[in-house]
Amino acid sequence: MAVTVYGPSYSTATARVIACLEVYGVEYRQVPVDLAAAEHKQQAVLYGNPFGQVPVFEDGDLKLFESRAITRYIAKKHKGNGPDLLREDNLEESTMVNIWMEVEAHQLDKAVQPIIFQLLVVPVLLGGEPDQKIVENSVKNVEKLLDVYEARLSNSKYLAGDFFSLADLNHLPYLYYLITTPYASVITSRPHVKAWWEDLLSRPACQKVTANMKR
Amino acid sequence: MAVTVYGPSYSTATARVIACLEVYGVEYRQVPVDLAAAEHKQQAVLYGNPFGQVPVFEDGDLKLFESRAITRYIAKKHKGNGPDLLREDNLEESTMVNIWMEVEAHQLDKAVQPIIFQLLVVPVLLGGEPDQKIVENSVKNVEKLLDVYEARLSNSKYLAGDFFSLADLNHLPYLYYLITTPYASVITSRPHVKAWWEDLLSRPACQKVTANMKR
Repeated sequence: MAVTVYGPSYSTATARVIACLEVYGVEYRQVPVDLAAAEHKQQAVLYGNPFGQVPVFEDGDLKLFESRAITRYIAKKHKGNGPDLLREDNLEESTMVNIWMEVEAHQLDKAVQPIIFQLLVVPVLLGGEPDQKIVENSVKNVEKLLDVYEARLSNSKYLAGDFFSLADLNHLPYLYYLITTPYASVITSRPHVKAWWEDLLSRPACQKVTANMKR
Repeated sequence: MAVTVYGPSYSTATARVIACLEVYGVEYRQVPVDLAAAEHKQQAVLYGNPFGQVPVFEDGDLKLFESRAITRYIAKKHKGNGPDLLREDNLEESTMVNIWMEVEAHQLDKAVQPIIFQLLVVPVLLGGEPDQKIVENSVKNVEKLLDVYEARLSNSKYLAGDFFSLADLNHLPYLYYLITTPYASVITSRPHVKAWWEDLLSRPACQKVTANMKR
């Protein structure tokens, strides 16, 4: 039986889950939820997230929410059919995966989010003018963070070490939107970050997901 | 050889790590870092976090950062000497632990943080007046979240199920500060949340950590 993902393709959290399903070739059904409609919170509750957010993920009787917990579930369940993205059998490697998953969630996404909101959400969905001061401050924050990434990626091919992991994959949605803004150079001007990003984006699963993120 | 924790006892992220060490009775050395001093970011970098935040955790040659990745490391390494806080051997249980760890990190902490900042940091560390409007909006957000917790905890004794897990333990620092504010009733007025909180706080490890959080 196919699993079900409730959430629209342009939602970063939904795209994060779908990218992981695509990596393992898991069959899924997607039910879009219109985030612009006022009822989206009630819909998400109805589908199984008591906090009213997408995505909601359904596998048989199991209803899951929180995108990074869902990608952990998919990677753990399907690791026999694809890459071992969590490295749970190795204490040190799994810890490095966890550290860079936390960095993605608490540092990079937090810094990139206001840029995406101002440049993509405000003009396209809200019909307003971006606040350029917020954008510029956020770009500075992202640059400082990516300096650390550049140093890290000059020592190892991927974030957690010389192996592709969930820490890398979870970065796809926010960085994909960032690269479509006039500030793509924060990525492309840092040679190791650029090479890492191109490696990530070129994967067939990531190509498919980002093609659907374009509205 | 004892492990080392760099960070002050009043820092919520540092307290989160120490609580986990105390649960397993791991011997540790604590090196306080003065967050009020301008050089704290450089110190944290020096101790091993390139992003300049505390805590930094040292176990032999291994230097770790991001408090929730550190607590995962401690729980995984020491589960033979105490509770199995991650349940990695069970796909469904570990997923529930992961979901509620994400809820703690992305929902509850985010909602509680402005209350702590306005009521404890602004007057005590910055010598200013709390912005009561921010406090009241945040309290409303926390109440909505705790309604979901109340429903969850009326179905299972702990957040991830009928077993104590890292999802529960990670909540200690922020909820401890929240309970010291005039808004403690957001916890105590919800019977299942109250019982869960009292169970958490009464544990010897948690008693020790919270005693040291008082300045």
